[in-house]
Amino acid sequence: MHTDRIRLSSLHSKVMSAEQAAALIQDGMTVGMSGFTRAGEAKAVPMALAERAKKTPMKINLFTGASLGNDLDKIMTEAGLLARRSPFQADATLRKAINAGEVMFFDQHLSHTVEMMRNKQLKKPEVAIIEAVAITEQGHIVPTTSLGNSASFALFADKVIVELNLAHNPNLEGLHDVYIPTYRPNRQPIPLLKVDDRIGTTAIPVDPAKIAAIVVTNQPDSYSTVTPPDEETAAIASHLIKFLENEVEAGNLPRNLGPLQAGIGNIANAVLTGLKDSPFEDLVMYSEVLQDCTIELIDAGKMKFASGCSITLSERCNDRVFGNMEKYKDKLVLRPQEISNHPEIVRRIGIIGINTPLEFDIYGNVNSTHVGGTKMMNGIGGSGDFARHALAIFVTKSTAKDGKISSVVPMVSHVDHTEHDVDIVVTEQGLADLRGLAPRERARVIIDNCVHPSYRDKLNNYFERACAKGGQTPHILREALEWHIQLEETGSML
Amino acid sequence: MHTDRIRLSSLHSKVMSAEQAAALIQDGMTVGMSGFTRAGEAKAVPMALAERAKKTPMKINLFTGASLGNDLDKIMTEAGLLARRSPFQADATLRKAINAGEVMFFDQHLSHTVEMMRNKQLKKPEVAIIEAVAITEQGHIVPTTSLGNSASFALFADKVIVELNLAHNPNLEGLHDVYIPTYRPNRQPIPLLKVDDRIGTTAIPVDPAKIAAIVVTNQPDSYSTVTPPDEETAAIASHLIKFLENEVEAGNLPRNLGPLQAGIGNIANAVLTGLKDSPFEDLVMYSEVLQDCTIELIDAGKMKFASGCSITLSERCNDRVFGNMEKYKDKLVLRPQEISNHPEIVRRIGIIGINTPLEFDIYGNVNSTHVGGTKMMNGIGGSGDFARHALAIFVTKSTAKDGKISSVVPMVSHVDHTEHDVDIVVTEQGLADLRGLAPRERARVIIDNCVHPSYRDKLNNYFERACAKGGQTPHILREALEWHIQLEETGSML
Repeated sequence: MHTDRIRLSSLHSKVMSAEQAAALIQDGMTVGMSGFTRAGEAKAVPMALAERAKKTPMKINLFTGASLGNDLDKIMTEAGLLARRSPFQADATLRKAINAGEVMFFDQHLSHTVEMMRNKQLKKPEVAIIEAVAITEQGHIVPTTSLGNSASFALFADKVIVELNLAHNPNLEGLHDVYIPTYRPNRQPIPLLKVDDRIGTTAIPVDPAKIAAIVVTNQPDSYSTVTPPDEETAAIASHLIKFLENEVEAGNLPRNLGPLQAGIGNIANAVLTGLKDSPFEDLVMYSEVLQDCTIELIDAGKMKFASGCSITLSERCNDRVFGNMEKYKDKLVLRPQEISNHPEIVRRIGIIGINTPLEFDIYGNVNSTHVGGTKMMNGIGGSGDFARHALAIFVTKSTAKDGKISSVVPMVSHVDHTEHDVDIVVTEQGLADLRGLAPRERARVIIDNCVHPSYRDKLNNYFERACAKGGQTPHILREALEWHIQLEETGSML
Repeated sequence: MHTDRIRLSSLHSKVMSAEQAAALIQDGMTVGMSGFTRAGEAKAVPMALAERAKKTPMKINLFTGASLGNDLDKIMTEAGLLARRSPFQADATLRKAINAGEVMFFDQHLSHTVEMMRNKQLKKPEVAIIEAVAITEQGHIVPTTSLGNSASFALFADKVIVELNLAHNPNLEGLHDVYIPTYRPNRQPIPLLKVDDRIGTTAIPVDPAKIAAIVVTNQPDSYSTVTPPDEETAAIASHLIKFLENEVEAGNLPRNLGPLQAGIGNIANAVLTGLKDSPFEDLVMYSEVLQDCTIELIDAGKMKFASGCSITLSERCNDRVFGNMEKYKDKLVLRPQEISNHPEIVRRIGIIGINTPLEFDIYGNVNSTHVGGTKMMNGIGGSGDFARHALAIFVTKSTAKDGKISSVVPMVSHVDHTEHDVDIVVTEQGLADLRGLAPRERARVIIDNCVHPSYRDKLNNYFERACAKGGQTPHILREALEWHIQLEETGSML
């Protein structure tokens, strides 16, 4: 019974249909919504809003944690509901609208959104829509499979709509650790010293008077799609693990490597899964999204604890975890994405950050977002939050599209991580350790170790001619973007 | 008497000539030296090393705080002494050698150098050379006009050479606040909550047994060169102050603006000097270099306190401060650059960061280091430490070289600060507030507000044609770097 899950009985009267709740949102409003990488997004109210927008055109500015499941970004885009979207998305239809200039997409470091709102550098949401597994006796909101930006959105908004989703196991309660930084100028240090520290509350401490509607739903999250490691991702994992072994051997990294972060996606997932067969023990994770690989490492006895802001699993892994929460509850915690990605913590605890770029260049600049320098893929996500202060490792296959695209280029067509922030790059060809190197030295190790053989001569040729021209970072400007231009014109960089 | 300044008498026997001290440094060694923007660099030993290298070729890897005075980088370069140099420099001769590929320059965020060494991601110096105003009864080193990386270099090195510089007023003692983060995994939060908090010691707590040599010198720092504000820098200051006034008015910033950071140089200096005539009171600074403008704001009663890691003054200002330290000592503090620039602190206390780029593009990407995408100017310095987590403001004249170079271009030729990190850009033409905007919107406000009229039509033309091609960040790759190519080939972007 849903009323069992609304433990503050005065709120029972707030239960209403999704359409009624959606009526609280007006054309032009800024809405903050739960949801982070297909996990824990509000589902019914955005659907109802989309239906309404199809009949009576309206637009909202939508902020979330990150990407949404259940095709919500597609449905809202098709309904013409989205004027602005931030800070991340991963939907083909929305992507198309963004690239056509129809939806204004503000692509942010994921730890920055609520910090900017708190400090009045970005407009706060007027309404928050938060998926919950329960409402406590105090009227506080117990989130579901992601915490993301939900807590701050709920605290900032004038009105909060709760989607009470009966499809989520109520024993998710206790998994979350809600900590909100205090306001400046009285901001205190974030008192988190170890990945498993709990520093907050298990529910979002919202004033129950602000809860304007409760919509009862019963719809699961979308599963993540995980493809098994292939020969190339296995080779990437192997190069990286070899490097990590050497670093431990040399005394440069602790025997458990220190806290790990991994971006979402198959390559990072394959690398982490590769750690199952590594010599490292007592691994811990301080990351954004907890994925299948996290669970597999825990089940294999390799990982002691994992901290994230969302948990997104494949169908295969889903029941194993959510059907046995008690088994995992002392090994997992979900935090606000501001805390899971916070530079203060990343720098304090010393993270190894493993993320996947679209491309990188011979000098170690990384493009994580823009295909051909112009078209948005998903957004920078948390990669920048981590890479700046972590041991920053970027992993990718050396080519894409049957070898027609080289992931290593003379000059990236867009920069999301500068040369100052990138420590290690890895492809199936090998690993380049860029730490402490000048750009010319970086080019040498990148070309020698990471580039696919079919592009190596061409890159060497570019680099040598550029060096002859001189400079700290030698380039021939007239040719620097030529590979991308050729791709655009002929469909291949070859 | 120099012996009065060596208060641990067992160290008196370590006094020797610069040549004798320099003999402690071998070919191929990594040396960590004091010095930050012409302030507090060791002077005699590097000179002696350069003399020696001229006779017997030798090379060292030199790490400092930042740039050096007294033409030291020039002299060491000409002597062929430098194999590697990091993390910052500002010397014409060294710059030339770097761009010729003769000296390997590793251009780092200034807060990262000693953190990377501490965590064994970068080789620690074998020898440290630290300028001091005194050595305490405990054998601890009292730095001079900069603290920079001196404390960690001295702690990391096997041997420490102290240059006791009698030209500095001994009453600099007490100005410094030496705080060193603890080692991971037991790192504690940095206990600094306000710009005037003192959290460390006034001297560098080095083991006196490591002090291998003391060289007595008597040579002042180089003065900084400050040119008076001109019409354009005054216009930049005026646009920025108007913006800040509006932000205070709207309740988006506190009445004293919060802690200020300003990059070195005439434009930032002019902007800060402009605050003398602003309505703001009780200003505080949490910055890197304390410059003339800092002192002028303090003397005008506008600024209460300033924290930095170095103090670099013009000849005019120098005696006023160092001749009257007692007047300023409760209003100034010098910290390690790791702390003055630390992301934990920058994000906690909420800084307004004002820095000067070489160029920025219509989408808000900033180039701070590379002329024409290839040739190093000085290095990124602390701008990235601050911009990532501050309210990041970049100020520059809209053109350079008599109008032949536009500071606003279609695509920057090198990226040091990505679109994700840049909040406000200002030229003498006006100010563009980029917060929360998608790239297409940023281009509109930048072109309308910041571009020099002689380039506005050309940029509009580019932007409109790029938009017709589409994309989140519209570009015509074949033309994106054309302005730089034209400059290279014809000497003008016009």
